[in-house]
Amino acid sequence: MKFNQHEIRMPALKRGCHLVTDKILREISGSLSQYKVGLANVFIQHTSASLTINENADPDVRKDMETFLNLAVPEGSKAPWVHTDEGPDDMPAHVKSSMFGASLTIPISQGRLALGTWQGIWLCEHRDHASGRNIIVTLQGE
Amino acid sequence: MKFNQHEIRMPALKRGCHLVTDKILREISGSLSQYKVGLANVFIQHTSASLTINENADPDVRKDMETFLNLAVPEGSKAPWVHTDEGPDDMPAHVKSSMFGASLTIPISQGRLALGTWQGIWLCEHRDHASGRNIIVTLQGE
Amino acid sequence: MKFNQHEIRMPALKRGCHLVTDKILREISGSLSQYKVGLANVFIQHTSASLTINENADPDVRKDMETFLNLAVPEGSKAPWVHTDEGPDDMPAHVKSSMFGASLTIPISQGRLALGTWQGIWLCEHRDHASGRNIIVTLQGE
Repeated sequence: MKFNQHEIRMPALKRGCHLVTDKILREISGSLSQYKVGLANVFIQHTSASLTINENADPDVRKDMETFLNLAVPEGSKAPWVHTDEGPDDMPAHVKSSMFGASLTIPISQGRLALGTWQGIWLCEHRDHASGRNIIVTLQGE
Repeated sequence: MKFNQHEIRMPALKRGCHLVTDKILREISGSLSQYKVGLANVFIQHTSASLTINENADPDVRKDMETFLNLAVPEGSKAPWVHTDEGPDDMPAHVKSSMFGASLTIPISQGRLALGTWQGIWLCEHRDHASGRNIIVTLQGE
Repeated sequence: MKFNQHEIRMPALKRGCHLVTDKILREISGSLSQYKVGLANVFIQHTSASLTINENADPDVRKDMETFLNLAVPEGSKAPWVHTDEGPDDMPAHVKSSMFGASLTIPISQGRLALGTWQGIWLCEHRDHASGRNIIVTLQGE
């Protein structure tokens, strides 16, 4: 049984959903390959961005997801938010962060993440002008 | 400390939310009973179905949940999606998959899942005509 | 490698989102401080309340989140729910429970939860008149 923890600094990304599987795998591959079976937890230390697992192929799926998020969460002069000090995109970003969540737990099998054929890890950036984001990946298993 | 991993093939289910606790327990019970304390991770390897924990009694709750999902995510000629190659239910399915998520982590106590009295595991199928789905259950503990 | 499991009884909370980080930390701090690296799973054993991670500072964020939840999930005479036996707030509570989810998995580093500066643990109570709620925290690591 062992544990590995990796802190990953993600560069500033523009508002929207981004496929980050390869970036994360590059950071953890040295450790990951040592696990026969286990779990990987991917955690983002922020409240205005989120992590989700979704389609890894057609970029239009990421664009449509951003369209959905903006449809589901009102923003701007007609939005009902009280918390507006940091701009019109701030409270909508907090809402979206809770909708998708801050962490993912993915099985590890034979030294690899046991993602389905079409699954990838997305970082969804909900702010208009974010700086980079911190992610912590914790691996455990044997 | 030990790990067990089970791959479970779920049969094709019709669009909507389905209670699958018993099916999953049947597959893992031999391993589960050996854990005094631990965690069970249930992971679905798809991007157009999801897992969630909700009420295990009244089937109307599952029907109402499907009603909600269709209310929250537009589908058909007025929907704003660009990704429509696989049919009108495809992009809505991806959205719903991220809303509920692809994995659950449930505590294990005394050889059993420590679910609340009214909690069950649901598989929500978001496609009109899906084939079966793969689930990976990873148990860990002592 | 070790495991600790804590059952925490939360007092009755009024409908809305509540910051519960300190309450949970008080209950688990004796165990938590012994882990150099690991994961903490926080699980609520109910289907009409949820857990999420969000902003730990301005209480208006919690109020705005409750505003969002009520905007997203219809309630009352115009709502389309079939499951209404326990009152108009019952089915909306089940929906909100699946939107945010019943469990959180948070990395542990050097005896502390590795939350970001602005992150806190929220318990969102979706019923009008709930009694207390059970939470199970499972710690694992080394």
